[in-house]
Amino acid sequence: PTASNGVPVPGLVTAFREEMKAPEHAQYAHWGATSQDIIDTGLMLRLRQALALAEEDIRAIVTSLGQAAEEHAALPMAARTYGQHATPTSWGAVLAQFGAPLMDALAGLDQVRESALWVSLSGASGTASALGPKAAETRKGLAEALGLADPGRSWHTDRTPILRIADWQGQAMAALAHMGQTLLGLSSSDSVEVSLGSAGASSTMPQKQNPVGPSALMALSHQFTGLRGALQSAAIHQHQRDGAAWFTEWMVIPQLSLSLAAALQHARRLSAEMAPRPVQMHAALEENLGLVHAEALSFALAELMPRPEAQAKAKALCMEALDKRIPLSRLARADYPDLPPSVFDPMKGMGLAEEEARAFAKRAAAL
Amino acid sequence: PTASNGVPVPGLVTAFREEMKAPEHAQYAHWGATSQDIIDTGLMLRLRQALALAEEDIRAIVTSLGQAAEEHAALPMAARTYGQHATPTSWGAVLAQFGAPLMDALAGLDQVRESALWVSLSGASGTASALGPKAAETRKGLAEALGLADPGRSWHTDRTPILRIADWQGQAMAALAHMGQTLLGLSSSDSVEVSLGSAGASSTMPQKQNPVGPSALMALSHQFTGLRGALQSAAIHQHQRDGAAWFTEWMVIPQLSLSLAAALQHARRLSAEMAPRPVQMHAALEENLGLVHAEALSFALAELMPRPEAQAKAKALCMEALDKRIPLSRLARADYPDLPPSVFDPMKGMGLAEEEARAFAKRAAAL
Amino acid sequence: PTASNGVPVPGLVTAFREEMKAPEHAQYAHWGATSQDIIDTGLMLRLRQALALAEEDIRAIVTSLGQAAEEHAALPMAARTYGQHATPTSWGAVLAQFGAPLMDALAGLDQVRESALWVSLSGASGTASALGPKAAETRKGLAEALGLADPGRSWHTDRTPILRIADWQGQAMAALAHMGQTLLGLSSSDSVEVSLGSAGASSTMPQKQNPVGPSALMALSHQFTGLRGALQSAAIHQHQRDGAAWFTEWMVIPQLSLSLAAALQHARRLSAEMAPRPVQMHAALEENLGLVHAEALSFALAELMPRPEAQAKAKALCMEALDKRIPLSRLARADYPDLPPSVFDPMKGMGLAEEEARAFAKRAAAL
Amino acid sequence: PTASNGVPVPGLVTAFREEMKAPEHAQYAHWGATSQDIIDTGLMLRLRQALALAEEDIRAIVTSLGQAAEEHAALPMAARTYGQHATPTSWGAVLAQFGAPLMDALAGLDQVRESALWVSLSGASGTASALGPKAAETRKGLAEALGLADPGRSWHTDRTPILRIADWQGQAMAALAHMGQTLLGLSSSDSVEVSLGSAGASSTMPQKQNPVGPSALMALSHQFTGLRGALQSAAIHQHQRDGAAWFTEWMVIPQLSLSLAAALQHARRLSAEMAPRPVQMHAALEENLGLVHAEALSFALAELMPRPEAQAKAKALCMEALDKRIPLSRLARADYPDLPPSVFDPMKGMGLAEEEARAFAKRAAAL
Repeated sequence: PTASNGVPVPGLVTAFREEMKAPEHAQYAHWGATSQDIIDTGLMLRLRQALALAEEDIRAIVTSLGQAAEEHAALPMAARTYGQHATPTSWGAVLAQFGAPLMDALAGLDQVRESALWVSLSGASGTASALGPKAAETRKGLAEALGLADPGRSWHTDRTPILRIADWQGQAMAALAHMGQTLLGLSSSDSVEVSLGSAGASSTMPQKQNPVGPSALMALSHQFTGLRGALQSAAIHQHQRDGAAWFTEWMVIPQLSLSLAAALQHARRLSAEMAPRPVQMHAALEENLGLVHAEALSFALAELMPRPEAQAKAKALCMEALDKRIPLSRLARADYPDLPPSVFDPMKGMGLAEEEARAFAKRAAAL
Repeated sequence: PTASNGVPVPGLVTAFREEMKAPEHAQYAHWGATSQDIIDTGLMLRLRQALALAEEDIRAIVTSLGQAAEEHAALPMAARTYGQHATPTSWGAVLAQFGAPLMDALAGLDQVRESALWVSLSGASGTASALGPKAAETRKGLAEALGLADPGRSWHTDRTPILRIADWQGQAMAALAHMGQTLLGLSSSDSVEVSLGSAGASSTMPQKQNPVGPSALMALSHQFTGLRGALQSAAIHQHQRDGAAWFTEWMVIPQLSLSLAAALQHARRLSAEMAPRPVQMHAALEENLGLVHAEALSFALAELMPRPEAQAKAKALCMEALDKRIPLSRLARADYPDLPPSVFDPMKGMGLAEEEARAFAKRAAAL
Repeated sequence: PTASNGVPVPGLVTAFREEMKAPEHAQYAHWGATSQDIIDTGLMLRLRQALALAEEDIRAIVTSLGQAAEEHAALPMAARTYGQHATPTSWGAVLAQFGAPLMDALAGLDQVRESALWVSLSGASGTASALGPKAAETRKGLAEALGLADPGRSWHTDRTPILRIADWQGQAMAALAHMGQTLLGLSSSDSVEVSLGSAGASSTMPQKQNPVGPSALMALSHQFTGLRGALQSAAIHQHQRDGAAWFTEWMVIPQLSLSLAAALQHARRLSAEMAPRPVQMHAALEENLGLVHAEALSFALAELMPRPEAQAKAKALCMEALDKRIPLSRLARADYPDLPPSVFDPMKGMGLAEEEARAFAKRAAAL
Repeated sequence: PTASNGVPVPGLVTAFREEMKAPEHAQYAHWGATSQDIIDTGLMLRLRQALALAEEDIRAIVTSLGQAAEEHAALPMAARTYGQHATPTSWGAVLAQFGAPLMDALAGLDQVRESALWVSLSGASGTASALGPKAAETRKGLAEALGLADPGRSWHTDRTPILRIADWQGQAMAALAHMGQTLLGLSSSDSVEVSLGSAGASSTMPQKQNPVGPSALMALSHQFTGLRGALQSAAIHQHQRDGAAWFTEWMVIPQLSLSLAAALQHARRLSAEMAPRPVQMHAALEENLGLVHAEALSFALAELMPRPEAQAKAKALCMEALDKRIPLSRLARADYPDLPPSVFDPMKGMGLAEEEARAFAKRAAAL
């Protein structure tokens, strides 16, 4: 009957009434409710659980990231912008950058729960017409019994509570994908600055250590993005209830939650297992002729001359370094012997990196 | 230079320095900032404006809907579920259903502003390395001067503030699309229960009154949904700044805001101009052999017999009505002469519709 | 091992070698191939099957639509544009409109198969480096043995063959969704011009006959659209093979095929079972004051006066009809007694509808 | 009037009739056509132009890639799979890999044109009811006059021709994004194996050479993917014409074409200007302890022992190399002094790379 009715509730109600073994009361089961009340309320109970599990995973991830951020707060590495070595930063700061949006997600979770985990009990057309004169009280009571919020009205056609949950999930997923995409870069053979702990073997290449976890984060993010689009289309109900839109939710919402859950599992393992490779990080800072110090140089030169002139001079020195394969520091010191050594010291050039790493670690520890 | 650099900021800084007419100070413009600081902060200033405009439009829409909901709180019409006449509701309740998620959007706006309208000032790699020892204070001061929030850190790679704004826009858009899709149904020739005020003429069919506004709402919603997907992809930054992801935002974010703004304009006009056609509403309630009262009948019969029996009986009467084209009320009364007249009275069968319409109207008036 | 390797092939090869029970030959299994060769070739074998099943379903649907189009080629009904009654058409023409893009899909299928069902055998980096000097011949032989096409090169990073299959599926899905969305309109209580055969019962409303099939078509189309977006993202491989992109395919491609397969099953049942309700169709043509004949009237008047004048006159008559609730034909005849009766005869006003229905039926019968 | 009608055609017809300066004939303009005929036919004329421009760009790109593939057919570099150095390939083979799907796109273009560039002339409801008895001939004549294909029927609700064009565009876009994403990797500071020719300057970092072109390719691909999803939703027309779906096309189709056009321009410049850095390529092959030769080693060892044993041995040697930072070749030779030198020679280990590069170059030259 479910296939032909399109919804499992008629079958469920029949089975439930029989299971009650109380024929005289059986008729009161589902009295005045509609299928959508049952399914949407059930959905919210499951989404509450999904949010609780996600919260637990995020806490574990943030805790791991925080501990590592404290440990490596001052471990210098090259920041990359547009894929180019830019200026020094620290591994701890990068970890803080992974964790900050997840911590914001935790901070926003209560608000999501309150504004989205709603009970539904408003009957066939959302008017509670068969729920008797105390329909509003009944709904309120049901909400309390189930620990859900009572929106004080029907939401058969208002799918924004579901969007709010998916939006929160999407923000968490974006944070995880940023971590995944960055780890793909840092664990690549071209960088090798981060070890992922466990990695995948190849069926034919003995040396391979494939970044399975970060790749999975990206793939799950792509899947999430596509399905999130479908959920937006599913939010457009016509009239008082809309099967076409509603059916879509059933295919999309569980998969969105599973997709985030799988990503969180990968991220949890990665955040616990990954480790920096300080030697490679140091090499990357220096190998590129020390160009990562170019911005610092331009500001140091600006102490000696107007800044546009200093920028032009720094740029010319960079070009010369690239051209002659001579480290920038050597060329610069030749022209300006009095430049302070701090200009070419990554530990001095990482600005607030250490401070931000420690601040994040502290917040994470206080969770 | 903008085309080759990929960003307008180098050109802007040059022009700005010249325009300063203070060569001795010019070098301090853009000292320690990076292009992304300028563009992201500028973006937030514009999004603040976009949110303010959206708020104004939503207030106007909710106000119009509230006034109409009060006026038509008890105007009966057929609720449709799955496109089928279901039970009676009221036009006021339908209007409340349009307005409720918009009112929730207003209620959530402050939280969006606080958690998303952020200043950016953290330099090339997010470490504020060239912003001096008081970088954090400088950022805080800039935030205050601009009336933006200071996230207390770099958000070069954390695009969740942007997602939070787009998510809020997406929830508003979903509410508008529900209104549009429902109005497409109610203004169709098959229903004609709502007049849209202004409508579009056809180039060849003299009688046509095309529902331009609701069609535009749907089209803008489709566009929004697609672009929102692109924004999710754009949230995946690699390393410390990511041009590929960032460039995507520039193409997507303005269009998302424009798309919502256009939809709000259409909705504002529609909410002010649309009007119910009570005669057609009445006809729809009755024309379908009065089947819209079937649920009420089944509950009335459940006073006389066990509910499963009552449901089966009601279903049989519906089938007979359809088969013989005899109104359900006539058939039912033939078998159960004592059925109360309220069973077939839409005014009695609309449950909380009137109450919910008035409650919405009251909240809207109190905005 | 699959979980940690990210791919099932290492485990598969181990199991396969053992199962061979020929230790002296076991080492030659997977010699020179890479995981992606195995999985992509296996994928194509499965997609070939998915296409064959889809073809069978589409043939059945087109056959049913063709038979019905022949039967109802001249059954008049109101065409709707923008949801408004426009001019007369026939049910047969509407069925032909459902079937035409499906017939085009059949016509395009061979080309899809040839340009997309490819064998993969090019080794770790697509260079066939461990496949020996006859690597190209080996790949060609494998292609022949499996009945797949040999692209003559590696396609590890060229996912366009997969896109071509998904694009074909997407065109079929669009055709089905158009049918679903139109049937939602025609089976709604406001129109009731089409009976869907089987329909869904409500858990609380005895009279309901929910359009489960068309609703499912729409929901599957939404799901397909979202996942198709994810597949486009998955087509962006970096370097010579890209796990993040490739993993995405595994989650998306099977679901796209299942989504289309489910939609085809619904459409197959609908196309065999749905039936027009001629009485309701006739009523719709006439009920709206006969405005559906307004275009015909304007052209008839253009025989008597310049066309702009005729259009203005026709429009004025429509407005008067709506205003006074008097049929357009009566008003028009009052002013122009000599108007030919064909102007208000739907059988005369449906243009090529009958002809197109029969042409489609003939093509369908010749499949 | 366009804003209120939702379509520009009524205004256009009025203007056109006046411009004709032939009042006696003016009425025949737009006789029997509907707005959608005009706009869809006009759209196809513009899409034909967009396809022609895309073809020209693709030809130029393929030509540039072919010339470079010939020149660098045997220039060895490390192939990357999952971001890990895998086995040797050649820069020419990578270029061939960029170009192959574009060449397939060219090959498929005629078929797209024939199956998609359709004329529309079927009147208000697709029945050509006001186009007279020779409506089919008129449409055919118009098709010939405009150089479009005549589908032999109405396609008001069949948007698959538009999908076919967008699908072709999407396949081209996927090929460009693969090129962009790969160039982002190869031009990064961590690889520096490819010079992009022109690159973007930073507003604050003198050394930066931002990969503006590849970043733009990725951003345009994200935008395209989102909008392509919206186009799929726009393909779902209800009834005989559907404003909501149709309006969506107007916002999406031009942007899809522009998005591809911009990407092609970037790709054209990149394919002409980018150049390999052989020294860096050589360094990458060797720097990683020569692990890129591990697969070749495992097959060479399989000449001396059963393959599973050889794979295990090769893996052990790789681990030892990583552990002791000793090149794989030195360790392997210590144990197996008779290993042929070709095992560690990238020129010998690139399999069909050179051959495939030259084959592509030849096909490209023959365009």
